[in-house]
Amino acid sequence: MKAEHINPFLTSAVEVFSTMLNCDLKRGTPTLNAAFQPAHDVSGVIGLSGKASGTVVVSVDCEVAMCVTEKMLGDRPDTLNADVMDAIGEITNMIAGRAKTGLAHLEMSLALPTVITGKNHVIRFGSLAQTISIPYSCAWGDLTVEVGLIEVDEAAAEKRTMMASV
Amino acid sequence: MKAEHINPFLTSAVEVFSTMLNCDLKRGTPTLNAAFQPAHDVSGVIGLSGKASGTVVVSVDCEVAMCVTEKMLGDRPDTLNADVMDAIGEITNMIAGRAKTGLAHLEMSLALPTVITGKNHVIRFGSLAQTISIPYSCAWGDLTVEVGLIEVDEAAAEKRTMMASV
Repeated sequence: MKAEHINPFLTSAVEVFSTMLNCDLKRGTPTLNAAFQPAHDVSGVIGLSGKASGTVVVSVDCEVAMCVTEKMLGDRPDTLNADVMDAIGEITNMIAGRAKTGLAHLEMSLALPTVITGKNHVIRFGSLAQTISIPYSCAWGDLTVEVGLIEVDEAAAEKRTMMASV
Repeated sequence: MKAEHINPFLTSAVEVFSTMLNCDLKRGTPTLNAAFQPAHDVSGVIGLSGKASGTVVVSVDCEVAMCVTEKMLGDRPDTLNADVMDAIGEITNMIAGRAKTGLAHLEMSLALPTVITGKNHVIRFGSLAQTISIPYSCAWGDLTVEVGLIEVDEAAAEKRTMMASV
């Protein structure tokens, strides 16, 4: 991934948590092409496509998910229920949406978010995607934003290579 | 979801399994807006965006994942390794891509696939998305294709409603 494509993602989670949730995120050290590891308890996944194809994964501790939902809806949920899934889907949408506006030249639009739960679930990008994993901490716990992005010509070339090897 | 948007997804998995993997899928009864349930062992997720925003989830039994990989790469993997994740990501990409060509008027493009593993992981679409869940069986085991799609004007209107309620 090019640095210019990474930068909007470095700031978008911090901005969304600050403005929407009044919560300060502290950023850890980003890792490029991190190995395959279990996600946090709840993960929002959203696709982006246009002149680049990408996916953003926002993976949060259970307590972060509960606090995000409480801030958004006003009541603390009892369990990881549908409200929590919707809140994490919406936060994922906002983080990807804000980063997208910093990448206007790629003319990407957002797909629909999905939200994944399950103990020790693992989310993997394909081997061909270059990814960045950005860890954050806040008063509520830890979260990670992972982004994979391929510019479309590059994606088409890699696709041809992959198809040829099948 | 409109019937005309559902139809291409009813046939795309059958066509991809038949032509790419020489495997006949038998389709079960599709369910609209199915309740939240655990996925199979390995799930590929890919976003679509353009004049509609959507996500396609292809969730397969472990044995189906192993057999798909064996057919694509020639060797049977020992475990649910990176090759299996790549193979399921690629099949998800092909199923969504084939359905997309039947929905050319929506001018959608594909995001990057991600692949999820983890015992009893659950993948949820947001409450606002209308979804269809299509079960299939084959000699290797069971799989499900789930699709959520929102036309963009509709999505924007729902988004405004959601933001107003926050």
